Amino acid sequence: MSATAFNSIFFNRAHSSNKDLIKQQNVKSRIKCSIKSGIETSQKNVRVGVLGASGYTGSEILRLLANHPHFGVALMTADRKAGQTISSVFPHLGTQNLPDLIAIKDADFSDVDAVFCCLPHGTTQEIIKGLPKHLKIVDLSADFRLRDVSEYEEWYGQPHRAPDLQKEAIYGLTEVLREEIKNARLVANPGCYPTSIQLPLVPLIKTNLIQTSNIIVDAKSGVSGAGRSAKENLLFTEVTEGMNSYGVTRHRHAPEIEQGLADAAGSKVTISFTPHLIPMSRGMQSTIYVEMAPGVKTEDLYHQLKLSYQDEEFVVLLENGVIPRTHSVKGSNYCLINVFPDRIPGRAIIISVIDNVVKGASGQALQNLNLIMGFPENLGLSYLPLFP
Amino acid sequence: MSATAFNSIFFNRAHSSNKDLIKQQNVKSRIKCSIKSGIETSQKNVRVGVLGASGYTGSEILRLLANHPHFGVALMTADRKAGQTISSVFPHLGTQNLPDLIAIKDADFSDVDAVFCCLPHGTTQEIIKGLPKHLKIVDLSADFRLRDVSEYEEWYGQPHRAPDLQKEAIYGLTEVLREEIKNARLVANPGCYPTSIQLPLVPLIKTNLIQTSNIIVDAKSGVSGAGRSAKENLLFTEVTEGMNSYGVTRHRHAPEIEQGLADAAGSKVTISFTPHLIPMSRGMQSTIYVEMAPGVKTEDLYHQLKLSYQDEEFVVLLENGVIPRTHSVKGSNYCLINVFPDRIPGRAIIISVIDNVVKGASGQALQNLNLIMGFPENLGLSYLPLFP
Amino acid sequence: MSATAFNSIFFNRAHSSNKDLIKQQNVKSRIKCSIKSGIETSQKNVRVGVLGASGYTGSEILRLLANHPHFGVALMTADRKAGQTISSVFPHLGTQNLPDLIAIKDADFSDVDAVFCCLPHGTTQEIIKGLPKHLKIVDLSADFRLRDVSEYEEWYGQPHRAPDLQKEAIYGLTEVLREEIKNARLVANPGCYPTSIQLPLVPLIKTNLIQTSNIIVDAKSGVSGAGRSAKENLLFTEVTEGMNSYGVTRHRHAPEIEQGLADAAGSKVTISFTPHLIPMSRGMQSTIYVEMAPGVKTEDLYHQLKLSYQDEEFVVLLENGVIPRTHSVKGSNYCLINVFPDRIPGRAIIISVIDNVVKGASGQALQNLNLIMGFPENLGLSYLPLFP
Amino acid sequence: MSATAFNSIFFNRAHSSNKDLIKQQNVKSRIKCSIKSGIETSQKNVRVGVLGASGYTGSEILRLLANHPHFGVALMTADRKAGQTISSVFPHLGTQNLPDLIAIKDADFSDVDAVFCCLPHGTTQEIIKGLPKHLKIVDLSADFRLRDVSEYEEWYGQPHRAPDLQKEAIYGLTEVLREEIKNARLVANPGCYPTSIQLPLVPLIKTNLIQTSNIIVDAKSGVSGAGRSAKENLLFTEVTEGMNSYGVTRHRHAPEIEQGLADAAGSKVTISFTPHLIPMSRGMQSTIYVEMAPGVKTEDLYHQLKLSYQDEEFVVLLENGVIPRTHSVKGSNYCLINVFPDRIPGRAIIISVIDNVVKGASGQALQNLNLIMGFPENLGLSYLPLFP
Repeated sequence: MSATAFNSIFFNRAHSSNKDLIKQQNVKSRIKCSIKSGIETSQKNVRVGVLGASGYTGSEILRLLANHPHFGVALMTADRKAGQTISSVFPHLGTQNLPDLIAIKDADFSDVDAVFCCLPHGTTQEIIKGLPKHLKIVDLSADFRLRDVSEYEEWYGQPHRAPDLQKEAIYGLTEVLREEIKNARLVANPGCYPTSIQLPLVPLIKTNLIQTSNIIVDAKSGVSGAGRSAKENLLFTEVTEGMNSYGVTRHRHAPEIEQGLADAAGSKVTISFTPHLIPMSRGMQSTIYVEMAPGVKTEDLYHQLKLSYQDEEFVVLLENGVIPRTHSVKGSNYCLINVFPDRIPGRAIIISVIDNVVKGASGQALQNLNLIMGFPENLGLSYLPLFP
Repeated sequence: MSATAFNSIFFNRAHSSNKDLIKQQNVKSRIKCSIKSGIETSQKNVRVGVLGASGYTGSEILRLLANHPHFGVALMTADRKAGQTISSVFPHLGTQNLPDLIAIKDADFSDVDAVFCCLPHGTTQEIIKGLPKHLKIVDLSADFRLRDVSEYEEWYGQPHRAPDLQKEAIYGLTEVLREEIKNARLVANPGCYPTSIQLPLVPLIKTNLIQTSNIIVDAKSGVSGAGRSAKENLLFTEVTEGMNSYGVTRHRHAPEIEQGLADAAGSKVTISFTPHLIPMSRGMQSTIYVEMAPGVKTEDLYHQLKLSYQDEEFVVLLENGVIPRTHSVKGSNYCLINVFPDRIPGRAIIISVIDNVVKGASGQALQNLNLIMGFPENLGLSYLPLFP
Repeated sequence: MSATAFNSIFFNRAHSSNKDLIKQQNVKSRIKCSIKSGIETSQKNVRVGVLGASGYTGSEILRLLANHPHFGVALMTADRKAGQTISSVFPHLGTQNLPDLIAIKDADFSDVDAVFCCLPHGTTQEIIKGLPKHLKIVDLSADFRLRDVSEYEEWYGQPHRAPDLQKEAIYGLTEVLREEIKNARLVANPGCYPTSIQLPLVPLIKTNLIQTSNIIVDAKSGVSGAGRSAKENLLFTEVTEGMNSYGVTRHRHAPEIEQGLADAAGSKVTISFTPHLIPMSRGMQSTIYVEMAPGVKTEDLYHQLKLSYQDEEFVVLLENGVIPRTHSVKGSNYCLINVFPDRIPGRAIIISVIDNVVKGASGQALQNLNLIMGFPENLGLSYLPLFP
Repeated sequence: MSATAFNSIFFNRAHSSNKDLIKQQNVKSRIKCSIKSGIETSQKNVRVGVLGASGYTGSEILRLLANHPHFGVALMTADRKAGQTISSVFPHLGTQNLPDLIAIKDADFSDVDAVFCCLPHGTTQEIIKGLPKHLKIVDLSADFRLRDVSEYEEWYGQPHRAPDLQKEAIYGLTEVLREEIKNARLVANPGCYPTSIQLPLVPLIKTNLIQTSNIIVDAKSGVSGAGRSAKENLLFTEVTEGMNSYGVTRHRHAPEIEQGLADAAGSKVTISFTPHLIPMSRGMQSTIYVEMAPGVKTEDLYHQLKLSYQDEEFVVLLENGVIPRTHSVKGSNYCLINVFPDRIPGRAIIISVIDNVVKGASGQALQNLNLIMGFPENLGLSYLPLFP
């Protein structure tokens, strides 16, 4: 749907009741206020809901939307903080004139065009099942990422509650599945680790440049990936000035990664995947150790990645020899990649970095909603990294 | 000068030589490229130079300009890194297509409309003296902040080298001196501490609500304020997990602050000013302890600040009782302020926070250049804080 | 009581039952094991209990005791973690052979000589009231710090539950009240802020060198001061890379500080006290702004502090002009102090730094128990700061 | 040599001149003072020099020696800081009464029994060559770690300048080469990465439980490993809140690790080794991905490590399933290890953590000098980790 087409729909909701009109005006006035400090734009004509706006992926959506020329925030939910202002929950958003938080049961979606679903894993299937069908949905939880619902049950410990929706869901790895996403109604936004790992590996597996056995991924993440819930092990005092592996062999992102790699390979793939918690808020690096196919050299990997991503804005292969740093993507939607020879002949080392909250979550989600809505993919994502 | 007027000048540089034309085209094409990931805009019609682009204030200017609809980067200088690409100096800017760094002596300013001068204190007077007169200049160094050149000599240990320019320079505390700045050719951009301290105090002094004796400022700054030069005391290992006062009674921002407060008071002011180095990259808080004038209450202070800043976008008085946090301004141009009663009767505590690199440096500088060029003050500054 | 006398008591507990003997042997063997990696010592003949061993002050007591030649850990309580090993609660102590955590109701104090009480404020009065009278007690909570029980009620929101014990309690500011502490049975260990503030101010007030009006304390603390309970505002992501004031004018340490200063002054004292949360685990700095008495100079303050602390091991006045840093005390029991002239004539700036967990809590507590037990004050406290 | 024997030597240096006696007395009195806050001990009868005391490994030696019952600091060198007090170079040691820093050319070693050599790589061979032969030496640089001097030349870019000494040098991986170290005069103290990697791998390779091909080490280090020299890339602002790989395939510790593993295997070993810089001061984790020998299970690896290290104080195999954390060793000499199954059948994941400054440098150095001098290996090393 083009932006122009969309506008006309927006301005011709003929069947609105008076009460609806008043509400609609409230929403519009709020949206108008909400861009007080945003970029100059004639209007925000797509109305977006943020479900679960009291977590970090929700607040990041709000940050990005402030500079989006078309997407305005129509409603925000947070069940446990219903009734609160956004400034009481996220003081850094307090300068914006955003609607107050409401309970999801009180949300009126009749005026809403699309939602970002930023709710916890396990609770999302039921909620999305209950949403009106006119809504476009980008779901940032893991609830619709695994096509095989039995695998969902195995890793998440409960039966899948919306298997029909699962069939409809499109996996939102933008650069890999762009065309499918454009036509989706429900996008399952990828996990942060899976994004950072699949982006470099999928093209190399598809072109048979690397072996799919013995792929070893040593991944490192900032703490924001664990969300905002108050847990002892995430306290500043417990995290700062130290690091540790976690979820060794049992991290829930493993089946999601393997699903994507298997799609690329056309056969089952089992990887070694060990995440590490690093004392930083944002940032994710995957250091990936691979065996190359016989006769293949690291230069071949480099050239393939160059080829695959040369027209992409957000996936960038660095110059030969330059090591990606998470500092270089903080707050931005970029994924930086490079390839290095290993000391062990026949092996290569691939490094990719993203901001786990942006390209690994809310940024890619916005990229996907832009696609669904027919807008340029990069709207609202033109943030350079914040450094230092 | 209005934006429209400016455009016509830009497109009618009739006297360009062929060589100039080629260069101009290069510049334009570069500018075009440089906004690859910026907001969509028909053109960037004001050409800006960044002198001293290898430091943190320079790189922050570049970050902000990426989303400016009119200012394009025409040239960037860094004498010790001349010939290098920006990505080798600031990897986080490597996705942008910016011109390579050049030595300032090789800069051709004939096509440039304005410069941000991000050079070290003490070296800037000579350089600005040598710049063409058609350039608008925002100087981020301390070299033109003190009106009294003898005071400059006292605090900076060398005679002022451009006393005539000093007379012309306008102090760039935007919200306080907006009208003067609009007509300025050379703006002396305020220091970070002075910005965070004068913004809350100037209105209160002007209205005689607080005493000008015994103003005690306990200020805290992130490490980026010390710049990017390699010094042992700024190493990660020396800074993390600890803090300290520095420059006790001798910090060079003291006379700058006192100059501004004296202007507001109409008489000499001497303050107590103790800065502290905090283990964080960005952020600055000034905790200011004042004696109120007889009969004045903290509510009076609050109301005056409300009145003074109610129409300002970037200076925000928080709701009653809410404590400003530096987290809430990181990466943004906001200054958050609040006022609290003290346990000691007759005294009040004022807290203000800014991002020292944005409102305390490059953000305010851009705000000022917007004013000079006749654009809306907030162009390129619509960044919400990055949190977490 | 001398160490020798104590030994004889220890080895002649004639009335132990068989069951007691077995338990005692268990305790002793555990103690023996617990010093596996401790300093070499013939035996640990004083048996100490740690009540509330699952918090940071409790674990710090355990760290310090590992190198104490006489104090062995006989029991450790933690009601919510009863039954767990110390390594499951504090992995960094897992190399030590310490007793498992038990519920306080299951603790048998008959073999115990002394306890450190590291329980939360508000719960401690009842518990200490119920302890056997032969126990020496150092209480690290705030429950016995305020002599005036009505003041306790005012600041802590509940009536004092052990007013008789309050009368007996000695305030444990070691260097100021050493002689009283030696004869105490119950010591109320000072708060961290009160320690860092009273140590420099008490001698200056006692000698009338500074005014007691308009004492302004801007204090900064690491996050460990807030303890180990899981709260959203203490998450790594919420704390790192930012800072804020908290408890402005309402921090519960204010009356404790004012009580100590009033004792020194012989009259009521009201101070301005604003604490700040700094993104570091340990460390505390108090920057104190004072008015000197007429005719007094900063040199006089310096000399008085020199005089007061010249024989103290743990309170150190730095050389003239040297700024104390919290880095210089991390993990140690030192308090470093210095005095600086202010820009405002007649005023001075005093800076003191401590490790809030050591001198501000567990270290001073051990210093106090050493005194009570008749041992050299510094036993178990010979840790140099950990840097970097 | 026993401690008693050593004492008698110490007290019978019959040939001392008068001048020497005075100096000796000065040294002794200084040593006496230096333990002001150390553990109580009758005397410090071994006199130790610290060459290169202005770096982090030097200062850490000083921290550890403060609680050593026998080793006193007789002299400290730092050529560029000669004449300065230790407090001006390391304020955290300022409470100790240590000798001033001198230039190495001015050091009189006649009264010194042993030295820790904490000088930069490349400069150490010449200096050690020039030291008196009666000195016991633990060298913390890399200059004597590679037995093959041609390999040294290849990796360090300059010819080895003391090949004869190289033949004499014993590699100081304490738990592996204890008996050889006892009789050494010159110990080449292992690098931090090699320590953390060899300790878990050597026993497994020796017992043929793992393949020596395809050993992949993803290592993470705190910033202190880079030393105290002022470099832009080590600034707080450049390090905090981000991470990166470095020295990919080219880190100088690779040949050292491979040398040790080859010794264990009896054949050449080539490993994949990628270090990462983590935003923390101290701490090192090696995540090691190995292929097990046919039929071997992770339980076998666990049991072998249990067997190998059951009598060791400082190398600790954690309980089954417990993940080692660098937090758990900060400031201590421990190495914590554990073994985990991999998702890929036949592979295992081994995790080891150390404090790079202690077990990875100065702590192991002291362990080695204890051995050489005939003292219990753990003297001066009884520090529990500092947490939080």
